[in-house]
Amino acid sequence: MKVQKFSITDANLVRSPGQDGDIYVGNLVDERHGGPVTIGYGRYSPHQTLTEAMAVDDVMIVLEGRLSVSAASDTVTAGPGDIVYMPKGETVTIATEDEGAVTAYVTYPHWAQVHK
Amino acid sequence: MKVQKFSITDANLVRSPGQDGDIYVGNLVDERHGGPVTIGYGRYSPHQTLTEAMAVDDVMIVLEGRLSVSAASDTVTAGPGDIVYMPKGETVTIATEDEGAVTAYVTYPHWAQVHK
Repeated sequence: MKVQKFSITDANLVRSPGQDGDIYVGNLVDERHGGPVTIGYGRYSPHQTLTEAMAVDDVMIVLEGRLSVSAASDTVTAGPGDIVYMPKGETVTIATEDEGAVTAYVTYPHWAQVHK
Repeated sequence: MKVQKFSITDANLVRSPGQDGDIYVGNLVDERHGGPVTIGYGRYSPHQTLTEAMAVDDVMIVLEGRLSVSAASDTVTAGPGDIVYMPKGETVTIATEDEGAVTAYVTYPHWAQVHK
């Protein structure tokens, strides 16, 4: 595989699996490409909530806006330039308030393979 | 491991191993923490160049500024919000011009473990 550069306009953002809110994700690199990680962008509208049991290690970088991530023990709030690490095994609720958010994410292993 | 949020001010930025330029990196999550990935921030001053044979898969997200990544086949230029994927096995040269850059990175597996 070669070095590749992506911008959010390269991503085909679709409603994330298993939810009907205004949360859209688009993988740019995933199990189809031969590497170990999935890479993509996410877009959250304001006032959205998504709860998920993490089946992979997921690193989310906030590019625009603001979101919170709540787990059993704690809630963190992240804005532009912040990184949220959601380890495998945690159940998290990602929520936006009056601002939406744009994120980049990297997961190991591939999200799709553990959700089959 | 729990959900964690990081900002660049949480990172202890030190000169990246094996080079004497003004390029600083700081891991926030690595082999000491039990997960599969290394997570950190990097800061590049203007007019810096770093060449490296990738021993891991490295995903770099540009948060501020601009940098280019050159490999055998191609050169890409990335600015805020762009993602550069540097697969294991590629030899890359990361360079800044008149602007420096701030990046977030995620590697699999841990960078330090393959550089022992």
